Amino acid sequence: MKIAIIGLGLIGGSIARRLRGFHECTIAAYNRTAETLLLAKQDGVIDEGFADPGEAMDNADLIILCLYPQLNVNIIRDNLSHIKTGAIITDVSGVKSFMVKELEKILPNDVDFIGAHPMAGREVGGYKSSTDTLFNKASFLITPTQKNKPENIAIIRELAEYIGCKHVVMTTPDEHDAVIAYTSQLMHVVAVALCDSPMIERSRYFSAGSLRDCTRVAIINAEMWSELFTENKDALVDRITEMQESLEKIKQATANGDRAELEKIMKHATEQKIKWLME
Amino acid sequence: MKIAIIGLGLIGGSIARRLRGFHECTIAAYNRTAETLLLAKQDGVIDEGFADPGEAMDNADLIILCLYPQLNVNIIRDNLSHIKTGAIITDVSGVKSFMVKELEKILPNDVDFIGAHPMAGREVGGYKSSTDTLFNKASFLITPTQKNKPENIAIIRELAEYIGCKHVVMTTPDEHDAVIAYTSQLMHVVAVALCDSPMIERSRYFSAGSLRDCTRVAIINAEMWSELFTENKDALVDRITEMQESLEKIKQATANGDRAELEKIMKHATEQKIKWLME
Repeated sequence: MKIAIIGLGLIGGSIARRLRGFHECTIAAYNRTAETLLLAKQDGVIDEGFADPGEAMDNADLIILCLYPQLNVNIIRDNLSHIKTGAIITDVSGVKSFMVKELEKILPNDVDFIGAHPMAGREVGGYKSSTDTLFNKASFLITPTQKNKPENIAIIRELAEYIGCKHVVMTTPDEHDAVIAYTSQLMHVVAVALCDSPMIERSRYFSAGSLRDCTRVAIINAEMWSELFTENKDALVDRITEMQESLEKIKQATANGDRAELEKIMKHATEQKIKWLME
Repeated sequence: MKIAIIGLGLIGGSIARRLRGFHECTIAAYNRTAETLLLAKQDGVIDEGFADPGEAMDNADLIILCLYPQLNVNIIRDNLSHIKTGAIITDVSGVKSFMVKELEKILPNDVDFIGAHPMAGREVGGYKSSTDTLFNKASFLITPTQKNKPENIAIIRELAEYIGCKHVVMTTPDEHDAVIAYTSQLMHVVAVALCDSPMIERSRYFSAGSLRDCTRVAIINAEMWSELFTENKDALVDRITEMQESLEKIKQATANGDRAELEKIMKHATEQKIKWLME
């Protein structure tokens, strides 16, 4: 099996570090910077590095797209002639309906795109931040469509387990996007909104730990997240609206001095959080 | 000097654990449960325990109120005859204008109330959770008024340093409440609002770390925080409104697919957060 990894960043690099021995594969990689390819080859993480994505994909049985979503789509569109009949394509993007919709427009019927999303990350990015333990304890979401062949879905599941993911979960692109808009995107929206406030400039010495933790992800890759937000805009706008409504409910109870209502909301939230932690 | 600690919980207990040797004081404490008083006496943390707050305050030179705000006020109101002329009263509550306003109504002119707020806490409460290192690295806010005697303010500052606080900061009750409404109360509002969402029930396996961290403080003492929210309602309502407006700005940019605007907001938030971290 030949595997092509398109983009040797944090996720692509961390996948590559775990691929040795998977279906006795050879590993080709495309990356924008040649230095990273050289380093990965010297590390023994890849077999061949290419500055041209088409060359990396030539004869590949499995292509793993690890760039930002739109760039993944562009690279497939521009290199269709390099994709072999029967190839499987997967990705690691944080948006799934967008990827399925865009790639279904482009790909021939004999190439199977199976969307995927490993739930792992770090505040730091790039190949230099990649590790062979990134996926330990992580879950791995796969969003198959009716077009996907069961034997190909099975290979992606096997890949997820091989790189160390603890839970492999099948879901739909829509369910993925609706829930990720909450678990991931809304959390980034909230952290950014909190730090957008001029109040933070008056906060020195006025904080224990809650400001620090609630805004951990406010140190954000603006290019990537602005793309993810707009590619999942319908679901994210719904989640932000729900958050505004929750805030309004708490604001009204506070303004009315309604401690019973506040206690009810807080107790429900605490129960929900504990249930989530215990799952 | 005789010091009376009213309420031997997490904060009262942690203060008591550091008081030995401060102006060669004796330490009396009031607590609702007798078992805690016995334990603290056996630990050598207090000299005398009282089930009646008035008895604990008899002849005290310094009274440290460590209960919830309204309960602190009630106990002072109900035990005025036990407070000696010239006594200093301080507190550790998360609201300061409320405390100053309520106690100024009650206290005679020869008793000095100086509001204070050590910026330290834990998710777990009670004397059993108190430690002698809780205030290490913490800041300690003092909110004097024009009525307070400078020599009394100096004693509170000395106390803050003695128990291990790293930064002692003088501010006004209003500034304290405006900023704490952001750094502490709004963070708890946001965490609660996020966990109030039914989406959390669909989130198993769909999350890396951002949901966990943004909602850390959603496991909340509902009785205490509902009181703090309503006692600081004007400032908190303003902070929630600002948060709703920030969310609306991000929502509109997302809905419009305006990536440039999103990037601008994100970059500003990242800069503000880094600046805060570096302070």
